[in-house]
Amino acid sequence: MTVPAPENTAASTGPRLVAEEHKDGVDAAVAAARRLVTALLRAGDGTGADLDAVAAQLDAVAVRLTEGAPPVSERLAEMWRGEGVPRHDPVTGPENALAPPLRLYGTEEGAVEGVVTLDLPYQGPPGHVHGGVSALLLDHTLGVANHWAGTSGMTAELTLRYLRPTPLFEPLTVTGRQVSVDGSRIRTAGEIRAGDRVCVTAAGLFINKQLPRPS
Amino acid sequence: MTVPAPENTAASTGPRLVAEEHKDGVDAAVAAARRLVTALLRAGDGTGADLDAVAAQLDAVAVRLTEGAPPVSERLAEMWRGEGVPRHDPVTGPENALAPPLRLYGTEEGAVEGVVTLDLPYQGPPGHVHGGVSALLLDHTLGVANHWAGTSGMTAELTLRYLRPTPLFEPLTVTGRQVSVDGSRIRTAGEIRAGDRVCVTAAGLFINKQLPRPS
Repeated sequence: MTVPAPENTAASTGPRLVAEEHKDGVDAAVAAARRLVTALLRAGDGTGADLDAVAAQLDAVAVRLTEGAPPVSERLAEMWRGEGVPRHDPVTGPENALAPPLRLYGTEEGAVEGVVTLDLPYQGPPGHVHGGVSALLLDHTLGVANHWAGTSGMTAELTLRYLRPTPLFEPLTVTGRQVSVDGSRIRTAGEIRAGDRVCVTAAGLFINKQLPRPS
Repeated sequence: MTVPAPENTAASTGPRLVAEEHKDGVDAAVAAARRLVTALLRAGDGTGADLDAVAAQLDAVAVRLTEGAPPVSERLAEMWRGEGVPRHDPVTGPENALAPPLRLYGTEEGAVEGVVTLDLPYQGPPGHVHGGVSALLLDHTLGVANHWAGTSGMTAELTLRYLRPTPLFEPLTVTGRQVSVDGSRIRTAGEIRAGDRVCVTAAGLFINKQLPRPS
């Protein structure tokens, strides 16, 4: 297996707040699927590979996995069982090939922080991160910051400000911290930096309630 | 090849504003990769499949594709050449397995609209769409609405309001329309509906400038 790039490990030495990736089982298959998604974009139609054969091969794997899968309702109940951190979300989830994944750590100051380098799948403007991808990373990071602070909820409002383009292919620092809790209203802020340049800021209002877990 | 679900086709009869998917070549391989990403999440570790073998198989394909791929700088220049709509973005791109894909059409009223059904890879709260995924879909849709209106730019500010949870597994209508252009400042709005219930609204400020295309 390819070892994750070192720059995707946060500089912080605080506790890891999102799921650990295993080196085998579904996490290993998902990590390979991520590399495949990037490889498809890097290759495009210009590669020498027989892409119809690749499609058939991938479909065969997908069919085999789906045949062995439990009903969705059962899988949903399993996903949300217990008190552990989720393993399936599209930002940090080791079981989700959409997730870069972003690895978030708690800091001593009560904030959360992670470092991630994004490749072509996350592109918006030429050579830069899609504004909506920055929103996705920040929404999730603010949610984890609320968990870390001890009072979490669902996003009610999120405002992103794009100060400068966010580059692909270089380490980005994503941070979040809870600002205030007033009754059920939680205010949380975060940002994405490239080096010491702030690229995107986020301000979120969260409401302290949760959807019921499937059972 | 599996045919895309009919509910992922917009009800609108206006012109398609995003790239058409081809049934062969890289688009077919990417469509299969999407099914694979969903299948991995649906299966989890509970499937009978040998997931380490799956990982090895996917990695072998990724390595083969990467070996045949041009240098990234060359691929970037190729992606942005010409006047066609992008094929690589994480929302509508036929070459990007992260994209559901959302298929957007122009309406006679000058708005844009698409219908999409999201599966487990896009989950946030139990059984519902991740708030950041809604932000991603809306940011992109607002950008396409600006193109359709004739004056487009880069996101400067985006505000999302989450009115109710957005369900997975059912058709969602995503809309966007340009509200005003004042010098270089463009205001654009959009929403995500499930049936006739508005789940998320977006208001964006865009600045009429573009990053240079790589060459």
